[in-house]
Amino acid sequence: MYGEIITIGDELTSGRTLNLNARYAAGRLTACGLKVKRITSVGDNYPMVAEALNRAIGESRFVIVTGGLGSTEDDRTSEIVAKALQRPLCLDRDMFRLIQKHVKDMGVDLTPSLEKMAWMPDGARILSPEGHACGFCLVEKGIRLYFLPGVPEQMRYLLDRVVIPELLSLWPTEAIHTRIIKVFGLREPDLSEIFKQIEDKTGHVLVGFYLHFPEIHITLSLKGEDQVSVTGELERVDKEISELLGPYIFARGEETLEEVVGTLLREAGLKVAVAESCTGGLIGHRITGVAGSSDYFQGGIICYSNRAKVKLLGVKEDTLSHHGAVSDPTARQMALGVRRALESDLGIAVTGIAGPSSGTEEKPVGTVFIGLAAGGEVFSRQYRFWGGRGQIKLQSATMALDWIRRYVRGDPFLPGV
Amino acid sequence: MYGEIITIGDELTSGRTLNLNARYAAGRLTACGLKVKRITSVGDNYPMVAEALNRAIGESRFVIVTGGLGSTEDDRTSEIVAKALQRPLCLDRDMFRLIQKHVKDMGVDLTPSLEKMAWMPDGARILSPEGHACGFCLVEKGIRLYFLPGVPEQMRYLLDRVVIPELLSLWPTEAIHTRIIKVFGLREPDLSEIFKQIEDKTGHVLVGFYLHFPEIHITLSLKGEDQVSVTGELERVDKEISELLGPYIFARGEETLEEVVGTLLREAGLKVAVAESCTGGLIGHRITGVAGSSDYFQGGIICYSNRAKVKLLGVKEDTLSHHGAVSDPTARQMALGVRRALESDLGIAVTGIAGPSSGTEEKPVGTVFIGLAAGGEVFSRQYRFWGGRGQIKLQSATMALDWIRRYVRGDPFLPGV
Repeated sequence: MYGEIITIGDELTSGRTLNLNARYAAGRLTACGLKVKRITSVGDNYPMVAEALNRAIGESRFVIVTGGLGSTEDDRTSEIVAKALQRPLCLDRDMFRLIQKHVKDMGVDLTPSLEKMAWMPDGARILSPEGHACGFCLVEKGIRLYFLPGVPEQMRYLLDRVVIPELLSLWPTEAIHTRIIKVFGLREPDLSEIFKQIEDKTGHVLVGFYLHFPEIHITLSLKGEDQVSVTGELERVDKEISELLGPYIFARGEETLEEVVGTLLREAGLKVAVAESCTGGLIGHRITGVAGSSDYFQGGIICYSNRAKVKLLGVKEDTLSHHGAVSDPTARQMALGVRRALESDLGIAVTGIAGPSSGTEEKPVGTVFIGLAAGGEVFSRQYRFWGGRGQIKLQSATMALDWIRRYVRGDPFLPGV
Repeated sequence: MYGEIITIGDELTSGRTLNLNARYAAGRLTACGLKVKRITSVGDNYPMVAEALNRAIGESRFVIVTGGLGSTEDDRTSEIVAKALQRPLCLDRDMFRLIQKHVKDMGVDLTPSLEKMAWMPDGARILSPEGHACGFCLVEKGIRLYFLPGVPEQMRYLLDRVVIPELLSLWPTEAIHTRIIKVFGLREPDLSEIFKQIEDKTGHVLVGFYLHFPEIHITLSLKGEDQVSVTGELERVDKEISELLGPYIFARGEETLEEVVGTLLREAGLKVAVAESCTGGLIGHRITGVAGSSDYFQGGIICYSNRAKVKLLGVKEDTLSHHGAVSDPTARQMALGVRRALESDLGIAVTGIAGPSSGTEEKPVGTVFIGLAAGGEVFSRQYRFWGGRGQIKLQSATMALDWIRRYVRGDPFLPGV
């Protein structure tokens, strides 16, 4: 069942804000087998909204419209829709009561701009489960039009609680079942080549991949009613891919690398500490983004100065003057040092040149050493990352997290330069 | 001069990825006075792309199309465009040479999928300054169509280096002059109220604001040819706003809070160190996101465990057992401890409950203490932030950075609870 999304707001066409609503709605609808054929963003402006709306009514079975339902001057969706569909604006009694209640609860005045929100195109049915967020639905030429607020929390709430259940009850869909396989350490052309080996083994499963820097996400999708056979078929193709990619696969579905690392550490009963030079705290930030990470994360030392490397991590002055702060021996001593300082089982260390300056011929910008102290061993390796400062920090942090994952699982580390 | 943006990719209509390209292009074009009237996203699919393209040609003066130019199976933009505009696909010699060079440099084979990238609609002019990223331009019925890669870095590079300069040379615009004023510590309703005081003083300057969590960005915009009078008028309104908001304003334009903090520290000749508990490294990560931050950032200690707070920062066991890790005295001792450990001038500390668990009645999730050791003084204050784990970490880190900014400037800290 095809539909489309129209997002309204000058902040979208002027690039001031990211269109998070379109992405959320598209993702949720797609997952439910309700295909989105087009996403259109236009400003708070009569001819553009009217054109988008009328086109959608002619081409789609359902339309989700977000934005322009608030109380400010710019919020003109109801008025524009009324004009575009040639329906009068009427005062909605239910909506007016909700606004009166809100005004009373908040102890504010009932201003004309608040009252405006109760005026809706004739035939509108308000959507307001439990009196929370408010939107409305219109049926025009048999097409369902849902008008939702632009505030992301409210839009999501109404979409999930009202819109999608209604659409699915109207048109039970042949759901699209999707599986996402997340990979780190391979480039897109490498993957293209590897996938040629299983081209004739994927059956009806659609295989695609897209870059989610620095990760690559592989998507498997298959349409079907029979949950068991669909799952079986996805499972089969997943297995083919897993055999080809092995430990390059770090997660499936919504799971993140830091969540996988957390689960592995918790299961192994290991605690980790981080020594961060060029990543400046990013590894710690990512690890602690996971709820409950205090179970396995002891903390870390951000050793941005050489003095901090010596004093807090016990890196030898000699090592720094002979090999430099960005070197194999420094990474090893940092890993050992942070494990000792934070009394952890594993110590992971990153030192490198994030740029844009400070690169040399021998150690250009992007040169990064990873070190890991674990058990009686210390591992280290040199990498060469590319891109701007932010990208180099991100690749370094991801590589460090991937080292922890691979170490705990007993997989080999990714080759360096 | 009106134009529009078309972004192509199944990953957009299925909600797998955020449309960062549309946002970037819309923002850059708008800033140059080239108005974007519509943004359309469609899948890698002939009828939808053709429809969007033909509609745009009928209604706009220029069209920016991104996506579908790569080497994979899904990348079918050239083929679709050729069909939609009824032009044959031709082998572009220049493009073919670039691909041959790339293949040679990378030591890979010239596969059919790579060769495909050299086949373009008849009349295409390739866009490839310095042989980097590649896109092409077509002129159809006098309308300029720019086809750019979907890889954000390449799209941005071509847009800024080629597309916008070309468009501006064709249609010198009455530029929209915009100024952004960034604010932290006020809520949107507060700002609405405050702005009522200057409603009659803004003249022709359009004032808007939008949430860029946890910051609010105020935009002033004014159209005009005469640079001097436009700048003067923006300056005047900026001054009105500055008088009202004072130290709540932390930056203007593209500058970030961490950049402002960096500039202030460098000018004051002060070095800072961070003690991070609930933020887990985020403050360090943000500070080190700024190139040259080693001039004023000594590093930090991520003290996720109580043991780390005691051993590395010298927090007293007594304090932890009497007041808890999330307390005013702990924040103060952390700030003093990190300043001592990292031999810095300022020590900033954050300890709090990021949730979702571990909250109590007395100290609910979102309770955060900030501490600052500076000169002979130690400051501390309790805040209560809201939202999920990520939002609480972000607000805490922003508040800590804002403390440094306010301290160096001699402004009062934001009130706590």
